Amino acid sequence: MNPRAMPADRLAQQIAFLLEADKLKTVIRRTPLVDASRRENSAEHSWHLVLAAMILREHAAADVDLPRVIEMLAVHDLVEIDAGDTFAYDATHQLTKDDREAAAADRLFPMLPPDQAKRLRALWEEFEAGETPDARFASALDRLQPLLQNAGARGGSWRDYDVNRGQVLRRMAPIESALPAAWPIVLKIVEDFCASGVLRREQQ
Amino acid sequence: MNPRAMPADRLAQQIAFLLEADKLKTVIRRTPLVDASRRENSAEHSWHLVLAAMILREHAAADVDLPRVIEMLAVHDLVEIDAGDTFAYDATHQLTKDDREAAAADRLFPMLPPDQAKRLRALWEEFEAGETPDARFASALDRLQPLLQNAGARGGSWRDYDVNRGQVLRRMAPIESALPAAWPIVLKIVEDFCASGVLRREQQ
Repeated sequence: MNPRAMPADRLAQQIAFLLEADKLKTVIRRTPLVDASRRENSAEHSWHLVLAAMILREHAAADVDLPRVIEMLAVHDLVEIDAGDTFAYDATHQLTKDDREAAAADRLFPMLPPDQAKRLRALWEEFEAGETPDARFASALDRLQPLLQNAGARGGSWRDYDVNRGQVLRRMAPIESALPAAWPIVLKIVEDFCASGVLRREQQ
Repeated sequence: MNPRAMPADRLAQQIAFLLEADKLKTVIRRTPLVDASRRENSAEHSWHLVLAAMILREHAAADVDLPRVIEMLAVHDLVEIDAGDTFAYDATHQLTKDDREAAAADRLFPMLPPDQAKRLRALWEEFEAGETPDARFASALDRLQPLLQNAGARGGSWRDYDVNRGQVLRRMAPIESALPAAWPIVLKIVEDFCASGVLRREQQ
């Protein structure tokens, strides 16, 4: 691409996209802040995952491209601007998640110049597919950070939504394979919250 | 460093740091969201700058190392956890900013393992010094994004705090040198807000 081709239009498109992205700050997730003062939004969550990637990269099970992981995390929730946050343990809402998010991607990414729209959408799709080492590591961070915040906030979204141990462990599975050093921490948190009665054990 | 040296302690330190970093979500800046519904916090602001770096990098006046810029932006406001956000146009509070932030850096970064503490502190210091191409581009983004949000929110922090045109233009100067393509946009926004009476022109 010739960068002198309509630079003003290109910059105007980019700025319009950045202004639209501001709306991610208004998408409220189920996860509480560590101090339990309020629930977090998807923009600050995305920042936290970028920081977590920088700090925890050395524990990734596979060789990952940190700059790609970080860019993936920065865009991984943008579709929630239209689709909203879909609670991990809401099975009904999960059924429509893919369609709602694909429609959001169709609207949001094309606000950018075509080359950037294509690149960011590909990063988001790679994250959603969860198959590459970069996506698997990103996904593990996206599971671990809310778990840590829930634990800090003494149960948080588990306490509010009657979640059981098996659901949490299935949700956390990407950590076991992509960030194995953190798996004992996950197991300990889950067992502690079962012991205190916040997390139900499965029906036996 | 041998990664097998006390991995549990190292991971525990890293997780404690990530939990402490959660507090950045409670540091409230003067800048409003674009929809003017509330003021933004420093964590979601940091995410927005990471996204802006990805999108606007092609307009950087100098050759920049995007992954470094992004990591710099992810940590650039961490010291505000202790030091608070210092409003750009509060001259009195600005006088004590460096001391407050250095004390915060002395407490926060050493929560990490020494190699990471050193690296992140160096990135923050480079941002604050504002002398390298990476820091200058990061700083330009840190000036541009709040300007765009203020403009979107019809004046925002300028309207609330009686700021004048010269103050804003001096504050925005890093954009002129490090992100020159955006400078005409800055000038137009400032002139529009002078014309509508939100920004005072300097005493003449």
